[in-house]
This record gives sequence, structure tokens and C-alpha cells, in this order.
Amino acid sequence: MAKPAPAFWNAEPQGLLRAGPGFELRDVDPDATPGATADKTAGAAELARSAQELRELQEKLFAQSRLGAKDRLLVVLQAMDAAGKGGVVNHVFALLEPYGLALSAFKAPTAEERAHDFLWRVEPRVPGPGLIGLFDRSHYEDVLIQRVRGLAPPEEIERRYDAIADFERRIADDGVRIVKIVLHVSPEEQAERLLDRLADPDKHWKYNPGDVDERLLWPEYMNAFQIAIERTNAPHAPWFVVPANRKWYARAAVQRIVISELHRIGPEWPVADFDPDAERARVESSLGLRWPG
Amino acid sequence: MAKPAPAFWNAEPQGLLRAGPGFELRDVDPDATPGATADKTAGAAELARSAQELRELQEKLFAQSRLGAKDRLLVVLQAMDAAGKGGVVNHVFALLEPYGLALSAFKAPTAEERAHDFLWRVEPRVPGPGLIGLFDRSHYEDVLIQRVRGLAPPEEIERRYDAIADFERRIADDGVRIVKIVLHVSPEEQAERLLDRLADPDKHWKYNPGDVDERLLWPEYMNAFQIAIERTNAPHAPWFVVPANRKWYARAAVQRIVISELHRIGPEWPVADFDPDAERARVESSLGLRWPG
Repeated sequence: MAKPAPAFWNAEPQGLLRAGPGFELRDVDPDATPGATADKTAGAAELARSAQELRELQEKLFAQSRLGAKDRLLVVLQAMDAAGKGGVVNHVFALLEPYGLALSAFKAPTAEERAHDFLWRVEPRVPGPGLIGLFDRSHYEDVLIQRVRGLAPPEEIERRYDAIADFERRIADDGVRIVKIVLHVSPEEQAERLLDRLADPDKHWKYNPGDVDERLLWPEYMNAFQIAIERTNAPHAPWFVVPANRKWYARAAVQRIVISELHRIGPEWPVADFDPDAERARVESSLGLRWPG
Repeated sequence: MAKPAPAFWNAEPQGLLRAGPGFELRDVDPDATPGATADKTAGAAELARSAQELRELQEKLFAQSRLGAKDRLLVVLQAMDAAGKGGVVNHVFALLEPYGLALSAFKAPTAEERAHDFLWRVEPRVPGPGLIGLFDRSHYEDVLIQRVRGLAPPEEIERRYDAIADFERRIADDGVRIVKIVLHVSPEEQAERLLDRLADPDKHWKYNPGDVDERLLWPEYMNAFQIAIERTNAPHAPWFVVPANRKWYARAAVQRIVISELHRIGPEWPVADFDPDAERARVESSLGLRWPG
């Protein structure tokens, strides 16, 4: 018999990555791999190994909602361009059953969306009972790019931090467990990834010249992230900052955070609201039927 | 070096499963495995083997839409209860990237939906450019259960066949490739699957006593399927009937049909609408920047 692989984690990463009191984004090393014992190969194996645990939790969450439970999970994913959001979606969330995943990608707001309050387009995307909602970008863009680019006046940006806190408090009270994650890359790593995209014509469609414009504002973005985390961190809606220069680490860490939050919800197979014996008898008696072929 | 596995298919299943002129549902054997050379183990291996081909086609379809191509695919999945729709979603469509899949499950219509024309709730679910849309049940329920149960008057049911044909013609003209699939099980196989669900408390949530009520109307449903296929089969919106007593066969066949339709669309990596050399220079010059840590 093959020896079991050594455990990938020597400490639960969510405790290590959680933004606590006095958190400083500048102290997070994007190259670090907190809690992991391993390397790239082991990272892919860990994703596959934990997929079963993730799927079973998800299926239970979905199942219990069919009989009335309201629990659901909302994962908010924020990052600079090329930090690996797409990879997290395709390598972690792709392992979920499609029925149980509600994916929302928030782009630059349309004219209609801009005419409404910034949370207007977000509310309908809050996942329903039993679902895992994933926001690829989110209402935090309204205090990130909008702050950095001055797309709204300072007093409006100020108002939004409190509005976000109220909004997240309200949906948490309604049964939404919220987890907010920053994938944190270094500007050097981002440049490498952008150059990789430019080097491969099959990846040109992923490249956007505007990404470089935002890149040139790196310190302003880091400042905006720092403030957003400080102003909206809460026990019912915690922030996690995941070092993301190593894709294998970021993916495994996000998967583990999601699994941990699902365990915290603790979904259970629901108890049938029908009589299984009576139903068995109905099915069995129907077997005697002979329909004209 | 290991010998390559024998090909799973000895004939493209879509040709064998396509409902042609004079099609008779009663002639389809739910136990059959047209075109397959193999067994259950090979079926799972085939799904995994073809996943890469499927994903690359999907990614190209998605990518080319970012630069304006309108092509997309709509797969309509219809079946009796427990015929394996869920398994097809979780074993075939789950292999797609989440961004590229638009899954819509149509339940019994709400009061608001019933107050509108039957296609009112369907139109907003038509996939946008670059997406693979999957309808788990669809507007065909409006000529299946609604016909069998007499939920609408006969003249209204009659009207719907033509309305569906017009609707599908219109969206096909707009760039939607439509594929309609029936998973065809035998009533004996359905009974076994329902009894399996009843035997396992972890699966009780998948069981619905109403499924037996519909089961008792099997011949009426087969008649309604036959009529729906006859009235709405079209070159731009063909029907396929997939024998589904063997889950491994049904899944591999649906995957192959989807792959074949994507090849027919023939998506290509889009050509960049920017100058890659100029962009490379911009990224490289930004590497010289030194921001305060």
C-alpha cells in the first residue's frame, strides 16, 4: 500500500489569513504560503482531494434548503487584475455542482445601474437559500476603483462604507454567511502575468489595455483596499487576505476557507416530509402496470 | 508505453440519436447504447478524456464573444423524473468553466409567470453571446405536463407548438444554436431509481411524491413527447432522443452531442484589438516604477 501523502496544511489557513485588529495590508507578503507544508504539485492534489468534502457540504446545504433551511454562503472575491480570480473560479468553484453555484461577475456599471444607488444591482444577486454565491468583483468596486479614480465625490465614498456595513449586516441576519477575500499579488508578479498574456495570441482576449492604467495606480489601490478592509471587517462578514503570487497556494487556501465556512454552517441532510414506506408501496404497486407498448 | 484505449465511439452518436422523418419514440430502446463500443468504466473515462476538448471549445466560444461574435449554444434537456438530468448536469456540464455556463432550471410556473404568455419567463433565460445555456426542463413543459394534465385548453396547447417553432426560429436567426435532448428511460428503470432514493435517507430530498403521480400517466407522457418532437423538430433546432437506462451511456452521448454542435459553430480565438508590442512596452516600462512600500 502506498504511504498516505503528508497533510497539505499544518495549520488551518483561515486563522492565519483573517484580517484581524490592526491589520496592515503592507505587511502581507504576496510570496508567502501560510500554513502550507507543500509545493505546486501537492497544491493540485489537495484541490482534488478536498473536492469531495466540498461537494458533500454543498449538496447538504442545497438539500436542506429544499425543506426550508435558509442558510447560504456568499463569497466576495476582490483583487487587482491578473491576480488569479479566474483561476480560483475555474479550479475551486468549478468543482461545485452547477446547481448550487450562483456566480455573478460585476463589470463597470451600465448607465441604468449608475442612475441607481450602488447597491441596487447587488441586491438581486444575493444568493438564495441553499446556494453558494460567488461575487467576482462586487460592491467593493464602488469604494476601490471609484475612490482611486475619483468617480464619486469623497463624501459619497464615505457614505458607502457605512451603507455596505448595513447591507452586509442585514443579509447576514437573513441567513447569508459572508466571506470576503482579497487575492494579493505583488506588482512584479502582475507584470509577469500580463506579459505572459501578451506573449500568447490565444490569451490576448484576456488582456485589456486598461489593466495597465489601473496598474500605474498601485499604491492608491493598496490604500483603498486597506481602508475598505478596516471599515467593513466584521465577525459576520470577515475579510481574508490570501497571498496570491503562487497560484497553487491561493487556490488551495480559498478552497479551505470555503470548506471551513461551510462546516461552520453545518448543513445536514433534511428529514423527509413524506412517509418513505407508503411511497415505496406506491412505486412498487405501479410496477404491476402494463402499458400498451 | 501503455497501449491507447480503444475508441469509445465507433460511430458519432448524434447521427444515430437524431430524430429524423417518421421518428417513433416507441421504437427507441432505453437500454440501447448506439455507437458505443464500451461499458460503464469506459464511459467515465470517456467523459474525462473529452473534457479537455469540450473546455477548449467552450473557452474559444466565450473568448470570441468578447470581441463581438454572437454565437452561443442552447441545450434543452427534457425527461421523465429520475431519468438522469441531474447526473448529466453534474457529470457533463460541470466540466465546463462556470463563467461559460448559464443554467436555468424551470419549475412549475409561479402565479406571476402564469399570468403571462408561457414564453415570457423563457426569453430572459436565452443565453447571451459566448455562453452555453442549459435548460433543465423548458418551454416544452408547456406542451408536456400541461397537455397531459389538461392545465391548458386543447386549442391553447395547439397554439403553443407553432409559438415554440416561431420562437426557436427567431433566436436561431440571432445566433443561438439550439439542441434539444430527451433522456429516455423505461418505466421499470424509473421505478428502480425511485426505490433507490427511498432506500437511502440521504437521498430522500431528491424524492417527490408527485413523481409517482406523473409516472402513472406514462403512456400519456410518451404521446406528448412524440407530438412535441414531431411538431418542433427543425434543422436549426433538432431533437435527439438518448437512451438513458444506462447512465454512463446517456452522459457520454450528451457530451458528444454538445461537442459536435460546438465544432459546428467552430469558434476561433479572437484577434486582439490592441497592439501587443506597444502593450508589452507599456508593461515593461511600468516595471521600473518604485512605489513606497
